[in-house]
Amino acid sequence: MLIHELAREQCREVLARSEFGHLACARFDQPYVVPIHFSFDAARNCVYAFSTVGQKVQWMRENPKVCLEVAEIDHKGSWTTVVAFGRYEEIHQNPEESEARQRAEQLFMTRHEWWLPGAAKPRGRERADVVVVYRIQLDRVTGRRATRGHD
Amino acid sequence: MLIHELAREQCREVLARSEFGHLACARFDQPYVVPIHFSFDAARNCVYAFSTVGQKVQWMRENPKVCLEVAEIDHKGSWTTVVAFGRYEEIHQNPEESEARQRAEQLFMTRHEWWLPGAAKPRGRERADVVVVYRIQLDRVTGRRATRGHD
Repeated sequence: MLIHELAREQCREVLARSEFGHLACARFDQPYVVPIHFSFDAARNCVYAFSTVGQKVQWMRENPKVCLEVAEIDHKGSWTTVVAFGRYEEIHQNPEESEARQRAEQLFMTRHEWWLPGAAKPRGRERADVVVVYRIQLDRVTGRRATRGHD
Repeated sequence: MLIHELAREQCREVLARSEFGHLACARFDQPYVVPIHFSFDAARNCVYAFSTVGQKVQWMRENPKVCLEVAEIDHKGSWTTVVAFGRYEEIHQNPEESEARQRAEQLFMTRHEWWLPGAAKPRGRERADVVVVYRIQLDRVTGRRATRGHD
């Protein structure tokens, strides 16, 4: 197996064609990781996502340092993985942030059934959940690609 | 979409039939998440994995609190996800830990091409890398299953 480090632009290409990844947050040194759907905004170097308010959002409000991982896997010997460190920023429902919110919502709507599963909650918790729209402002992005080799 | 919480035993069944997941660690409140291959040991309530020594292992040595996520996804409307909080424990090459190491290696060998990709490193870094075998001792495991519904 040959493993190559990806250039920054190659990492951004992976993010641009992806809409599913894993987001890790942390509180009191305890990490927490869940799958998310997202939309990459190349011009603003961020990803947008949304979620009902649960453990993930509560933790990111307390500690905005997060890590997003995106994988493209054919089989064990052929895969690409991109890891981005970033910062959680909630996009509120107010006039100052309406442009960012519109931008996020436009990108969400290009995804198939974009309202799933970020807006879904377990049964028995169907209270009037607030859906939070947020961005992850990307700081550092790295990536690796593995291909079959003979060494 | 209907979302159900999984019972502990259902979560363990998902871990037992999985060998791929995402592992998050954290240092100084910065989470880091990467894909890993693992083997679940139901009798000892842990998963075993191995890796060359890189950022992930260095961070887990400093802070053993980790989170393992396993997903089974058919499409957006039908998925199962299990999240386990646990503790990193390195299994060293010494007589006291030889039984644990044998146990881990036996489980690894039941996986197809089990030495990939944990033992692979990017080109240009082919120094004599030490491969670390470790277990994640599982503390708390939760899970959710989503199925297509009409609400």
